Amino acid sequence: MIIIMTPKATDEQINAVTDKLKQFGLDNHVSRGVERTVIGAPGDENKVDKEALQAIAGVERVIRVTQPYKIVARTYHDSDTVIDINGVKLGGNQIQVIAGPCSVETLPQMEASAAAVAAAGCRMLRGGAFKPRTSPYSFQGVGVEGLEMMKQVAKPHNMPIVTELMDVRQLDAFMENKVDVIQIGTRNMQNFDLLKEVGRTHIPVILKRGMSATIKEWLMSAEYIAAGGNHNIIFCERGVRTFETYYRNVLDVTAIPVLKRETHLPVIVDPSHAGGKAWMVPALSRAAVAAGADGLLVEMHPTPCEAWCDADQAISPEELNKLMGELKITAEAIGRTI
Amino acid sequence: MIIIMTPKATDEQINAVTDKLKQFGLDNHVSRGVERTVIGAPGDENKVDKEALQAIAGVERVIRVTQPYKIVARTYHDSDTVIDINGVKLGGNQIQVIAGPCSVETLPQMEASAAAVAAAGCRMLRGGAFKPRTSPYSFQGVGVEGLEMMKQVAKPHNMPIVTELMDVRQLDAFMENKVDVIQIGTRNMQNFDLLKEVGRTHIPVILKRGMSATIKEWLMSAEYIAAGGNHNIIFCERGVRTFETYYRNVLDVTAIPVLKRETHLPVIVDPSHAGGKAWMVPALSRAAVAAGADGLLVEMHPTPCEAWCDADQAISPEELNKLMGELKITAEAIGRTI
Amino acid sequence: MIIIMTPKATDEQINAVTDKLKQFGLDNHVSRGVERTVIGAPGDENKVDKEALQAIAGVERVIRVTQPYKIVARTYHDSDTVIDINGVKLGGNQIQVIAGPCSVETLPQMEASAAAVAAAGCRMLRGGAFKPRTSPYSFQGVGVEGLEMMKQVAKPHNMPIVTELMDVRQLDAFMENKVDVIQIGTRNMQNFDLLKEVGRTHIPVILKRGMSATIKEWLMSAEYIAAGGNHNIIFCERGVRTFETYYRNVLDVTAIPVLKRETHLPVIVDPSHAGGKAWMVPALSRAAVAAGADGLLVEMHPTPCEAWCDADQAISPEELNKLMGELKITAEAIGRTI
Amino acid sequence: MIIIMTPKATDEQINAVTDKLKQFGLDNHVSRGVERTVIGAPGDENKVDKEALQAIAGVERVIRVTQPYKIVARTYHDSDTVIDINGVKLGGNQIQVIAGPCSVETLPQMEASAAAVAAAGCRMLRGGAFKPRTSPYSFQGVGVEGLEMMKQVAKPHNMPIVTELMDVRQLDAFMENKVDVIQIGTRNMQNFDLLKEVGRTHIPVILKRGMSATIKEWLMSAEYIAAGGNHNIIFCERGVRTFETYYRNVLDVTAIPVLKRETHLPVIVDPSHAGGKAWMVPALSRAAVAAGADGLLVEMHPTPCEAWCDADQAISPEELNKLMGELKITAEAIGRTI
Repeated sequence: MIIIMTPKATDEQINAVTDKLKQFGLDNHVSRGVERTVIGAPGDENKVDKEALQAIAGVERVIRVTQPYKIVARTYHDSDTVIDINGVKLGGNQIQVIAGPCSVETLPQMEASAAAVAAAGCRMLRGGAFKPRTSPYSFQGVGVEGLEMMKQVAKPHNMPIVTELMDVRQLDAFMENKVDVIQIGTRNMQNFDLLKEVGRTHIPVILKRGMSATIKEWLMSAEYIAAGGNHNIIFCERGVRTFETYYRNVLDVTAIPVLKRETHLPVIVDPSHAGGKAWMVPALSRAAVAAGADGLLVEMHPTPCEAWCDADQAISPEELNKLMGELKITAEAIGRTI
Repeated sequence: MIIIMTPKATDEQINAVTDKLKQFGLDNHVSRGVERTVIGAPGDENKVDKEALQAIAGVERVIRVTQPYKIVARTYHDSDTVIDINGVKLGGNQIQVIAGPCSVETLPQMEASAAAVAAAGCRMLRGGAFKPRTSPYSFQGVGVEGLEMMKQVAKPHNMPIVTELMDVRQLDAFMENKVDVIQIGTRNMQNFDLLKEVGRTHIPVILKRGMSATIKEWLMSAEYIAAGGNHNIIFCERGVRTFETYYRNVLDVTAIPVLKRETHLPVIVDPSHAGGKAWMVPALSRAAVAAGADGLLVEMHPTPCEAWCDADQAISPEELNKLMGELKITAEAIGRTI
Repeated sequence: MIIIMTPKATDEQINAVTDKLKQFGLDNHVSRGVERTVIGAPGDENKVDKEALQAIAGVERVIRVTQPYKIVARTYHDSDTVIDINGVKLGGNQIQVIAGPCSVETLPQMEASAAAVAAAGCRMLRGGAFKPRTSPYSFQGVGVEGLEMMKQVAKPHNMPIVTELMDVRQLDAFMENKVDVIQIGTRNMQNFDLLKEVGRTHIPVILKRGMSATIKEWLMSAEYIAAGGNHNIIFCERGVRTFETYYRNVLDVTAIPVLKRETHLPVIVDPSHAGGKAWMVPALSRAAVAAGADGLLVEMHPTPCEAWCDADQAISPEELNKLMGELKITAEAIGRTI
Repeated sequence: MIIIMTPKATDEQINAVTDKLKQFGLDNHVSRGVERTVIGAPGDENKVDKEALQAIAGVERVIRVTQPYKIVARTYHDSDTVIDINGVKLGGNQIQVIAGPCSVETLPQMEASAAAVAAAGCRMLRGGAFKPRTSPYSFQGVGVEGLEMMKQVAKPHNMPIVTELMDVRQLDAFMENKVDVIQIGTRNMQNFDLLKEVGRTHIPVILKRGMSATIKEWLMSAEYIAAGGNHNIIFCERGVRTFETYYRNVLDVTAIPVLKRETHLPVIVDPSHAGGKAWMVPALSRAAVAAGADGLLVEMHPTPCEAWCDADQAISPEELNKLMGELKITAEAIGRTI
C-alpha cells in the first residue's frame, strides 16, 4: 500500500496512518518530501481496509500495489486455461462460435435453429429460456420447458447448450436439465448471491460484462465464482454503454488483449448485443477474432423477422453460414482454426 | 408508432411494414415525402414489438409516441404520492433524512447510531445487514441477526428501519423481522426476479438507480414492482458513472426535477455514495434539497474511522447534527420542512 | 514520483528506471516487496516525462505525487480570489447572476434583454456575437457588430458584458470593443492556442468545462491561461456528457465543492446549457447556489419562442425575475447575498 | 419533421405549432390519437429551427426525418470516394498505414523514422510539429521548422507527410511547406473556425473524432469542411472516452462499419492514441482492418524510450515491420491489399 498525505498533513495524522497500518499487520516507511509525505507499506494488502485508511484526516490518496484478484489472475497462472465443454474445447487454438436464437420459442423453431447452427459448422447452441426484459409487459421467456427443448434439439447434433440463469431458484432446474454452460447476463454481473451459487457448481459459466463495468470489477466478479471453487469461467465482452446513440453499445475490442494479459481464462465476444443490429455482426465478429477472442456468441434465428425478441439483431442461417466462411480466413490469418 | 423508412425503401418494404402493423392491431397512414416515406401508426403501442418492425428491410427508425411505463407515470396520476412508513410520511411537504451506518456491525455500534440519528432529528434509521461488495474477500455483512439488531435499537426511538435486500431467498427473513423499508441496491436495479418478488409484498421499496441506468430504464424497473401490486416505491438517485475519476460518481441532480415531472412517486438522494467522501456530503445534500428531493439517505457512523465498510464516506454524529441545521434552512427557502 | 514494477521485473529493468530518474534529476528509493518492487522518487515531478518512464520494460504504473497545476491551485494560494469586473465582484460573498440571450440578434432585442436583466437585479449581461453551431447551415452569429450592440445596451445599466471568443483572430475586436469578460466555450476548453492568447491579456476569462473534461484537465486548461500572466479566471460548470438522453447534459454539481477545494478561483454554473430546457433552470440554479457556486450564467430572452438559437432553453424576463427571488432566499440560507 | 405533443396539449398549442411550421414553409398533417396528437410536417427540414418548435408550450418532442449532413452523406453519393494524396490512394482497395513519431524532434530522429516507415512498406509519414499538450509546462513541439524537416526526410522515400494543424494562423506555413495532409486533432473537432479555414483549401484533411463526439456530430464537423469546398476528408477514429481507466480510450470499432454506411469518405483508425500503450497496437490494428478500416495512423519511433512525447505508446521499427506482415494477411482475408 502507498499512502500519499495532503501537503499540510501533521505528524499526528502521519502517526495515525502508521498506527492503522500496524493494526492491519503492515510495515511502514515514511518518506518526507518537500511538498508531501508519502508512506510505503509493504505486506499483504488483502488484510487492509483501504477506506479505513482514506478516512484518516490528512490522507489524500491510498494506492494498492497488487491486484485484488488472485485465482483468475495470470500473475499466478501463466498458461491459458482451456475449458472442456463436453468435448468442445474453449480457450485453445480453435475458436468457438456459439450461435442460436435470442429466445427459445417453439420446438420447430429450435429444431430449425439447431440444424442451421450445426450446418454452419458451429459446435454449441445458445438460446434463452428465461429472458431479462426492460419492460414487465414484454415476453419473459418460455421458462423451464425451454431448457428441455434446447437439450432435445441439440442432442442429434451433439452440441452443448448455453443458456442464461437469472435467479438462484432456477439453478436446480438448470442442473436437472444438464445445461452445459450457464450464462450470467450483463444485468447480473454484480448479483453477488447468484455468482456465489454458480461458484458452488462445476458447470462452465459465461460471465457477461456489466453495462458499465470496469475490467477490474469484471475480474472481481469472476473471482467471486472462482472463490467458490468453480474455475470454469469464460469472460464475454458485449459492449459498454457510452454517450453514442447510433448503436446500442460500443464493443470494447481493447478489452480482449487486456483480459488476455490479466487473466488465463478464455474471452469471447457477443457482437449481436454489442451493435444491436444484424448488419453490424459480420464486421464486429471479424474484429473480435482479429483482436484475439477465443470465441463468439452470435444471435441467429431461422426467420429473424418473426423472432419474439430482438428481431433486428438476429442474423439468418444463410448469413451465419457466410460469416463462418469469413471468420475461417480471419482466424487463419492469426494462426488459429475455427 | 412512427416508422421512418430509408431513402430508397421500396413499395414492397413499405407494404411489409403496414402488414406487420395490421398484425399488431394498429392502423397506418403512409406519407410519401420527397426524401423519405414516413408511416404513422396510431393505436396501442404496448401490443407492438418494436424490434420486429425494425427488422424489416427498408426500415430506418421506429419511434414510440407514448411512454412504456404506466402505473408509475404522472400522466395517469396527477397528484404526488405520499408513502406512509409506519407514521413517517415520505413524498409530502416534509423532507425525510434517513441516516445510519453503511453496515450493521455490533449492538453497541447500532445503539449509538440510532441514538445519534434520532438526536439529530432524523426519523428513519438505515444500515446494511447484507452487503454487496466488489470483492469476495471483503466483509459481506453480519446477516439476519443484523435485521434483529436494527429493529431492537430503532424501537426506543420509534424509527422505521431501511435495509438492503440482495437475494430473493432473504425476503422471508425481512418480513419476519418486519423490515419497514426494503432497499434495492444499484447493482440489482435490473434484477427482475428480485423486483417481481418485492412487487408481491406491500412493504415500501427504495429503488436505487443503476450505475448507468437511464431515467427510462429506472422508471421501467419501478414499473416491474408496481405491476406486481406494490405501489409504495421511492426512487433514490445515487450518482451515475462517468469518465470523471476525482469522485466516485456524478450526482445527477437534474434527475430530481425530471423524475418529479415523469412520476408521482417520491424521489430521494444518497449524497454519501454519490460523492464517496464524507466532506462532500453537506454540499451535495443541500443541492439535492434545493433541487426538490423528498428525502436523503445519509451514511453516519458513531466513529467513522472505525467503520467496517466505506469508512471514508460516513459523517460523524456531530456532522449529521450540523447538516440537519443547514438543511432546515435550505428546506424553508423552498417552502418545505424537515 | 512512485513507480510500481510488474511482478516479474528484472534487476536490469529496475536499474533502467533508476537511471532514467537520475537523468530527470530525481532521487530514488527501491523497495523490494514479496510481490512487487516499488520505487519512490522524491524531487521535482515537473521535470519528469511520465510517459518516458512508463515506456521502460517492466514498469506497470507511474504515479505522480503532486498536482501538475500550480498557479491555479489552492495549495499555494489559500484565500479565495475575488475578481473585480469593472466594479462587480465575483468570487466573494455576493453571488452574481449573469443573464441574457443565447445570441445577439437585433438592437431592440438586446435593449429589451438588458433592461430585463437589470430589472431582475442581475449585474452582468451575456450574449453571443459569434456562435459555435454543430451545423454549418445554422445561424452563426451576427459577428463584430454584436459586440458593439452589447456594449451600447449595457451602458445605461452600467453592466459589464460577457461574450464568447471562438477564434484568436477576433481577439483584437474584443479588445477594441472593450468586452469585459471573455467566455471560452466548451468546445474550445483545450484549444491551447486560444488559451495562450487570452492568457496574454488581463481581461477576466470564463472557462467553460469541456463536454467530457475531467476536473484535472480543466484545471490544466486554466493553468495555460494563468501561465501567460492572466490570473482572472472563472470556472464555469455546464454539465457533462453521459449515456442519459432525457436531458442534454448531466449538471455535475459535485464539481462545485471539489473545485472550491482544489482552486482559489471562482466557480460559476450554467444551468441553461446543462439541462437544455427552460423548465429545468430554476431547480438546477437553486442546486448550484446551495452547493456553493459563486455565480450563474443564465439564458434569458425577451420572447423565448422567437429566439434565433436554443429557443427551448431560454427563460423569459418574468421567469428570471421569479428565479432571482428564489435564489435570494437560497443564498441567504447559506449565509450569502445575491 | 414530426412533432409529438404532450398528452394534455390544447388546440391552441397545436395551432401554434402548425403556424410556426407554415412560417418555416412546411406543410402539416395533424393526427389526433387517443393518448397524443402527432403532427407530421413534410418539407425541407433544413429551413426549420428545431429548438423554436420545441420551445412552444405543449410540445413534447420534435424529430427530424432526414439527416442534417448532405455533402458527406452516402445517401447522395453512392460510391466510395478515393482520395489521391500525391499518388497514394486512400479509400480504395489498398489499405494505407501512415506511420511516424508522435513529435518531430531532430533531423537524425526524423531521418531514421522516415527510413523505418518506408522500409516497413508504409507509404506516408506522420509526425507532429505543433503539439496539443494537456500541460502548459510540457514540450509544445518544434514548430515550423518541424514541417521543413518532415518534407526533407520524406522526399527521398517519395512519401507524402501528415501533420497536425492547431491554429488558423499556422495555415500559411502549412501551405508554404506543402504539407500533404492536414490533421485536425481530437480537441479541435469542433473548432469551427479552423474547420472553415481548411475547408477553403484543397489539401486532404484527416478529421479525428472528438473525445466524446457522436457519429452525427463528427459527420457535421466534416460537413463544415465540405461546405467550404474541400471534399478531401478522411475520418479518423481514435477511441472515445468512457468510465474505463485501464486504457486511455475505448477504440470504437463499431464506428467503422457505421461510417462506411453513412458516408462515402474514407475511414482510418489510430490504434496508438486509442489504447495508449504500444503493446495494444497490434491487436487493435488487426481489429480495425478486419472491421473495414481504409487505413491506420500508427506511432512509431526509432527509439521509443527516448521519445520526447507519448513514449509509452510508440512501437519500434522492428515492431512496425512485424505488424505490417500481420496486417497483410488480415487484409487479404477480406480481399484487400496493403
